Parts: sequence; structure tokens; C-alpha cells
Amino acid sequence: MCKSNQPSIGVYPGTFDPITNGHIDIIERALHLFDKVIIAVAVNSKKDPLFNASERVASIEKCFEDQKDRIEVIEVASGLLVDFAVKKNAKALIRGLRAVSDFDYEFQLALMNRKLVREVESIFLMTAFRWIYISSSMIKEVACNGGDVSDLVPPHINQLLKNKYSTK
Amino acid sequence: MCKSNQPSIGVYPGTFDPITNGHIDIIERALHLFDKVIIAVAVNSKKDPLFNASERVASIEKCFEDQKDRIEVIEVASGLLVDFAVKKNAKALIRGLRAVSDFDYEFQLALMNRKLVREVESIFLMTAFRWIYISSSMIKEVACNGGDVSDLVPPHINQLLKNKYSTK
Amino acid sequence: MCKSNQPSIGVYPGTFDPITNGHIDIIERALHLFDKVIIAVAVNSKKDPLFNASERVASIEKCFEDQKDRIEVIEVASGLLVDFAVKKNAKALIRGLRAVSDFDYEFQLALMNRKLVREVESIFLMTAFRWIYISSSMIKEVACNGGDVSDLVPPHINQLLKNKYSTK
Amino acid sequence: MCKSNQPSIGVYPGTFDPITNGHIDIIERALHLFDKVIIAVAVNSKKDPLFNASERVASIEKCFEDQKDRIEVIEVASGLLVDFAVKKNAKALIRGLRAVSDFDYEFQLALMNRKLVREVESIFLMTAFRWIYISSSMIKEVACNGGDVSDLVPPHINQLLKNKYSTK
Amino acid sequence: MCKSNQPSIGVYPGTFDPITNGHIDIIERALHLFDKVIIAVAVNSKKDPLFNASERVASIEKCFEDQKDRIEVIEVASGLLVDFAVKKNAKALIRGLRAVSDFDYEFQLALMNRKLVREVESIFLMTAFRWIYISSSMIKEVACNGGDVSDLVPPHINQLLKNKYSTK
Amino acid sequence: MCKSNQPSIGVYPGTFDPITNGHIDIIERALHLFDKVIIAVAVNSKKDPLFNASERVASIEKCFEDQKDRIEVIEVASGLLVDFAVKKNAKALIRGLRAVSDFDYEFQLALMNRKLVREVESIFLMTAFRWIYISSSMIKEVACNGGDVSDLVPPHINQLLKNKYSTK
Repeated sequence: MCKSNQPSIGVYPGTFDPITNGHIDIIERALHLFDKVIIAVAVNSKKDPLFNASERVASIEKCFEDQKDRIEVIEVASGLLVDFAVKKNAKALIRGLRAVSDFDYEFQLALMNRKLVREVESIFLMTAFRWIYISSSMIKEVACNGGDVSDLVPPHINQLLKNKYSTK
Repeated sequence: MCKSNQPSIGVYPGTFDPITNGHIDIIERALHLFDKVIIAVAVNSKKDPLFNASERVASIEKCFEDQKDRIEVIEVASGLLVDFAVKKNAKALIRGLRAVSDFDYEFQLALMNRKLVREVESIFLMTAFRWIYISSSMIKEVACNGGDVSDLVPPHINQLLKNKYSTK
Repeated sequence: MCKSNQPSIGVYPGTFDPITNGHIDIIERALHLFDKVIIAVAVNSKKDPLFNASERVASIEKCFEDQKDRIEVIEVASGLLVDFAVKKNAKALIRGLRAVSDFDYEFQLALMNRKLVREVESIFLMTAFRWIYISSSMIKEVACNGGDVSDLVPPHINQLLKNKYSTK
Repeated sequence: MCKSNQPSIGVYPGTFDPITNGHIDIIERALHLFDKVIIAVAVNSKKDPLFNASERVASIEKCFEDQKDRIEVIEVASGLLVDFAVKKNAKALIRGLRAVSDFDYEFQLALMNRKLVREVESIFLMTAFRWIYISSSMIKEVACNGGDVSDLVPPHINQLLKNKYSTK
Repeated sequence: MCKSNQPSIGVYPGTFDPITNGHIDIIERALHLFDKVIIAVAVNSKKDPLFNASERVASIEKCFEDQKDRIEVIEVASGLLVDFAVKKNAKALIRGLRAVSDFDYEFQLALMNRKLVREVESIFLMTAFRWIYISSSMIKEVACNGGDVSDLVPPHINQLLKNKYSTK
Repeated sequence: MCKSNQPSIGVYPGTFDPITNGHIDIIERALHLFDKVIIAVAVNSKKDPLFNASERVASIEKCFEDQKDRIEVIEVASGLLVDFAVKKNAKALIRGLRAVSDFDYEFQLALMNRKLVREVESIFLMTAFRWIYISSSMIKEVACNGGDVSDLVPPHINQLLKNKYSTK
């Protein structure tokens, strides 16, 4: 009756600069649907991130210390995301949706990814209601201007943001 | 390493008046993610469907004759859809997305469903590219005006549509 | 330094079938911006409301019993809304926004209203975050199917809904 | 150097209940692009129009009395619109766009029409700025409530609307 | 009967690079709703504006020379906008809406601002119809390419634009 | 019966960095509506294109070698696009539409262009279904990461992309 005996794997890609409670929420939802979730941290040389790749990987791993067997965090520096997913035997790319404008872009991306590799499905999950309005960039903007983001990110991310912006 | 030993179940609700190739595509994608998919056929007394409930259930079952162990088709006449999903031990409500306007409504619905029952996730899948523009109502409008929909629905649905509209 | 010595009046139109916590939230926000808010209850003969006009007016008045001097509830049976607003010396039509699809319609309506009467401004307020996903029609659908809406409407509305649907 | 020696024909479909200045504007723009424009008046038995088919055809013809050689007004009662366009040797279906929500539906319709008949192009024109917010249904709602629509429709339509609503 | 004896204050934030007739229209509408409007000129070091902060403040002040008692123009260099609004005892942040894409972003921003400071309301006003399609950036692009923007900005802004682009 | 004896001209503007099958499809559709199509290649100094202006012009010309009498490819370095269209006696600006987000921007642009020059119409065509999800930037991103875009661009563009990215 089972689909297969292999563990089901989902890939959740993003920049995570930094990871927010919204991302964490999506990952936890994905853990109800997949045996394993691989968090693919995009190392895009074009953008100038606040946190470098190793800082981002380390801070994500810290969020899931007690689920090490089901979560893997991997830097993805080059190549197509769908090729990465195929190499990892992933069944699906996981995308979190927040707003209508998100959806429009995600739609195009999913169509392109499907064209490139037919076997990997794109599935869309919705963040919990209270995270719908947050994004990494808005959190950075608020934190940079002295606003309190302590209930929008995990405590260690909050501390990292304070360190970054106080030294400026 | 497994999420649980129970088979994972997804509920795919709809009116299916009639079922289209787009619906079938979503169901086949869902079968890659769930052990079992329950197709919940809404019997909404307000709308005036072209096919009655038993016609719709029978024509859906015919599409999945060779996957009877993994597909179940059930009429849902009253009560909340999320309550139905809970009763069936479903992990997720499956929704197919086509266009931006779809998304807007689906978003509100998913938020309301989550509020009503926290344990059932809403997951969104995208139909194959070539089905993005079809819907049951557009197919009926085309068929009603003598247009050819034979490559948008399964053959037995095509025949049913011809029977309905020729007798008018 | 003052704009004028007359009290500022805003008109908040709607069907209110029934009034929800989202409506009440918008009205309370409007009370911070206007001296008086007139709630214009549309008596549209085309739609078939669950509650008749006097039920709706009475149940709205009950929500604002302790602010009778600043809230007025009036049935509007015919004529243009902007003409009503002018007759009442209102400065603005108040509209609550929830989703993108709302906005699109509201935009067209505001442009038409402005064309008809130049002196009445349309202002848009956003409901509190937790009411963004509710609407009168979704509440009726949930209540009709036995779902719990007790934290989405005031207690007396919840009771009215139970009465309506149990007698069906 | 010419595309062909045949006159180029565009079909502009609609309900035109009644025709507005926005429709007229689109037709005049289409006359710059096509040798002939056929106005296809949909006689949809499902909707309950304010003006019957012959009233609508007559009132449209009156708008273009001095361009009878380049404008044709035809009732379309049944059959697919694209089949009608093919029968009339039309190169394109002309659609007027107003708002985002329009576009979403038009997009789906154009995809379906192209699937049905490949040779007929859908082209989208934008109404003049001052007509963007008007539609036949909004004009009827305003006129029905005693509002002045004299600068949104031609004079003879304004008179027809007054006749309809005064006799109610 | 009055809300309070204190003058009501609204804050209208923006980059104003340069101020357009659309901005001026929103400010004049806001003056009907508030006793005083504070124009908060964002001095964002990341963007590279055409006009520096003092040029922008001076050119805005020139637009409202005869309403100095009700309009205040202030540079905002750092800190959160909502904190600024609280410090100024403002009741509301005023936002002008033009298009759907605007709304989507504004919605997220308003939710974040409300989360940060509960007492400051976001209210949305619509520009006059004829300014809906203009923005500072589009005006700069047109002016830079020799187009005429004299009826989209006040005369002194038109002159400033000519000076900037002729010296290039 | 003819609109005029002059050949009808449409201008199709873009960056074309590089030209895709989607662009080519729009141009071929435009050739059914206009006697001549001028492809206006924007040489925008702000953006940093992958291909320089002469590379882009040459590669577009190569796509239409057998229609040289009806297609003209011209670099547009400065000035307003509508002024260019007027100078070329063009009847219309041709725009290809793909997604809802496209439309929103195109709408604003068309309104501005119409304001600047009344005689030039903006007409919107839809790409063939299979090109709806592609754009020059997405193609570059895929090609840059080693993905196969050979069925999304003409062969010589595919080769040019390989040359560019292999030399990096």
C-alpha cells in the first residue's frame, strides 16, 4: 500500500539572510509531509548578504539541533536547483507562500523548474497566519532602525542581528 | 527515521462537474506525495450541477480503476470539509492552483480551515502546464456550444458531455 | 488651527449580514479618526439576506450600546450612497480592506463615487490582522455547516446564527 | 509589401447592456487597426439583460451611423465565438482591458480560444483613461439609483436608461 | 462629542524625489481629514536620489507656502517611521494608493507597522484619477528623455528637472 | 474601404538580452496585424546587459533574415519611445504579455505613453502558451547554471549563450 520504501525527501531552498520564524514554521510543516527536509542555502554571489554563507548555515542548524536526523542544511553555490534536488533524490521542492506577489513569481519559477526536470514536484505551503507579513529583508530593515524583532526570529538570530547592527 | 507507520492520506475536495484532465493531473501528483488520496465530491445543493452526485462519483472512479487501493471517492453532503479530513485521518487538504485569482480565494480558505482545525495542512500543487487554462465550467461552456473538448477530459467524460448536450 | 468647528462624520456602508468582529474593528478604528460614524446598512432587494434589515440594524446597535452618541445605524434602501453621504454632511466613505481582490473592486467603486460627488473622500482602513480572513459569507458558510464561529462574531450574533441554522 | 489584399477584420464581442463610452472608445481605436470591425452582441439566455437583443443592436448601430461601411453589428445567439470569427474571416478578437481582474479572466479566455482555433489572434486594447472605471453594470446601478451617467454613455443610451428606470 | 481637544496629526512619508502633483493631491485630501499633516522626507542613504534632502524639503515647502501653519516638512534620516509618528503624536500614517502592486506592498508594510506600534493607524487615500499613473521615477525617466512633464509636477519642480537634466 | 493606403507599422520595443522564442512569437503574430514591424532595441546604459547593443541587433536580424522587407531592427539609445514611434509613422506600440505582474506595469506605461502622444496606440498580444513562463533573465539564469535552454531560444542564441558562459 506504500508509495515506496525509500524515505521521502523535500528540498526547501532560500537565502535565509537570516532565517525567520516564518521559515521555521514552513520547515516544521514540511516535516509532517516528508521523512527528511534538506534546507538548500543559496550562496548567490550577486546579492550582498548581511550574513555570510557559513553564518547562515550555522544559525539554521542551531534552530533544528534536536532534529538532526531529519534536517540537513547544505550550501548551494552553483548549478540548477532542480539538478540539486534530483541528485539528492528529492521528491519535491518546498515553497512557502505569503502574498499574491510571491505567488506570481513562484508560479513562473515552478513552471520553469518543471520544464527542466519533470520528476521533481513543486509544492506550496502557507506560513502560519502570524508570520504572513514578515520577510528577511523587512526584519533587517526594522532591526537596522532599532526596532524590536525578538518575536519574529529565534533568540540567537535576534542576538546576531543586534551584533551586526551595533558594530555599524 | 519515518514520520509514522500509518499511511499518509490527503483529501482532494471539489465539485468535479465534470472531472477534467487538470483534476486528474493533480490527483496523480498527489499520489507521489501521499499513500492514499480521498477525492471528496461536494454535493452543494445551492449550485445546479450538470451531472448529479452519483454520476460524478462514478465517472471519477472510472478514471482510477487501476488504482482502487490508493484512491477513494466519497460524496460530501454536509458538514465542514476540515471535519471530514480529520475523521478520515488525513494529513492535508490538497488544492490545485491555476491562476492568480484562484490563489487569492484559496489563501482565505486555507486560513479559515487552519483556524478551524490546526492539524490539517493545506498544500497547493500546480497542474501541468497544458491544463492551466481549463476549468470544469469553461469545458461545459465550450462543449455546450459545440466545441471539441476531447483532449481536455477523459474519453468517457467527453461522451457524457455529448449525451447531455445533444439531448437538450 | 482647526479644520472646522463642525464634527467630522464618516459613513461606513455595508450589508452586515451579519456584522463580524472585522466590521466592528474597522468601526472602532474609524472612531479614532472621526467624531461620528454612520453605519449605512444596505437593504439590497436583489440579494437574499439571512437576516432582514431590522434584525441587522438591531444587532449592530447592540454592539455599540455604550457609544450611542458617536454611532448611528441607518437603513439605506435606495439612492446613491454618495448622495446619502452628502445629505449627512459626511466627509468620507470608510472602506475596510482585507485582500487584493477586495482592493480591485474598491478602487473602481471609489473612482465612480468620486466622479459622482467630488466632496466625499473614500478612505481605506485595514482590519486587525486576526480578522483579515473573515467575511460575513464565510462565517455563514462555516456556521451553517456546524463550525464554531464564536470568536469571529460578538456573542449575540453567534446566538442569532445558531437560532437561524437550527431551525432550518 | 502588403500583408494581403483582403480587408482586415476584427471581431469585438460583448453583451453591450448597454453600450458605454468605454466600448465606443475601444471600437474607434480598433478602426485604426482594422479595415472593418464586427460587433458581436452576445445573446446569452442565462443572464437577464436590461435591454433585449434588438434594442442593443439598434442602439449600437445608432452610435456608428456615419461609419456603416466599416462597422457591422451582429447578434450571436449560439456557437463558439471563435467559430463565428473564422466564419467572418476575422483576423483577431478584440478585447478591451480595464483592470487587473479583467486581465486574469481575459487571459484564460484567450488561451482557450487559441486552443480551439489557432488562426484567430486575441488582441487587447486599453480604453481611454477616463473610461477605465466604467462598466455596463456599474452604469446601470448608478442610473437605477438616480445618478447622472450622461457623460459616460451616448445621449440616446442615457435616454433609454431613463425610460427603463422611470417605468419601474 | 469631540474625539479629543488636541489637533489631529497625520504623517505622510515618502522619498519625494521629486514631489509630484499626485503627492500634492494626497496631501490636500489629508488636510480635510487632519488638523495638521507632517510630510516625512525619507533620507535613505542606500538609494541615490536625483535631488538631495535639502532640495527636496525646500521644494515641498514651496508647494505649501500658504498653509505653513498646517503643513510641516521634516527630514527623517534614521529610526523607524512609526517611532517618528509616535514622537510627533500622530494619529495615522497616510499612504497614497495608485495600483494593485502598490497595495500588496503597502499591506505588508501596514501590518508590520501595526505590529511595531499599535496606536498609529495606517489610512489609505486614493490620488485623483488623473494622477493614478504617475510616479516620481516615471516622471524622472520621461523628463530625462526630453518629455514634457509640465502638467504632472508644479512649475518650480518642472524647472528643477530641466536644470538637472540639461547640465548632464 | 481601406483605412489608408500607407503601410501600417508597429513598433515592438524591448531589451532583447537575448531575444527568446517568446519574443519571436510575438513578432510573428504582429506581422499578421501590421505591414511592417520595427524592433526597437533599448540601449539602456543603466542596466549591464550580457550582450552589447550590436550583438543584440545582429542576433535579432538573423532570426528574420527571410523577412527583411517587413522587419527592421533599430537601436534606440535615448529619447522617448513614443517620439521614436511617431518619427517612424508607427500606428501602435506592440507589447507582449505573459503574467499578471507584467500587466500591472504595462498598464501604467501605456497610460503614460498615451498621455505623451495621443496618436500612438498600445496593443497587447499574448505569447503562445508554451512561452508564457520564459523571459530573457530567466533564460540567462538557467543557462548560466548549466541548464538546457535549447528549445526556448533559436539555435544561434543558444550558441551565443554557451560562448558567453563558458568563457566566464
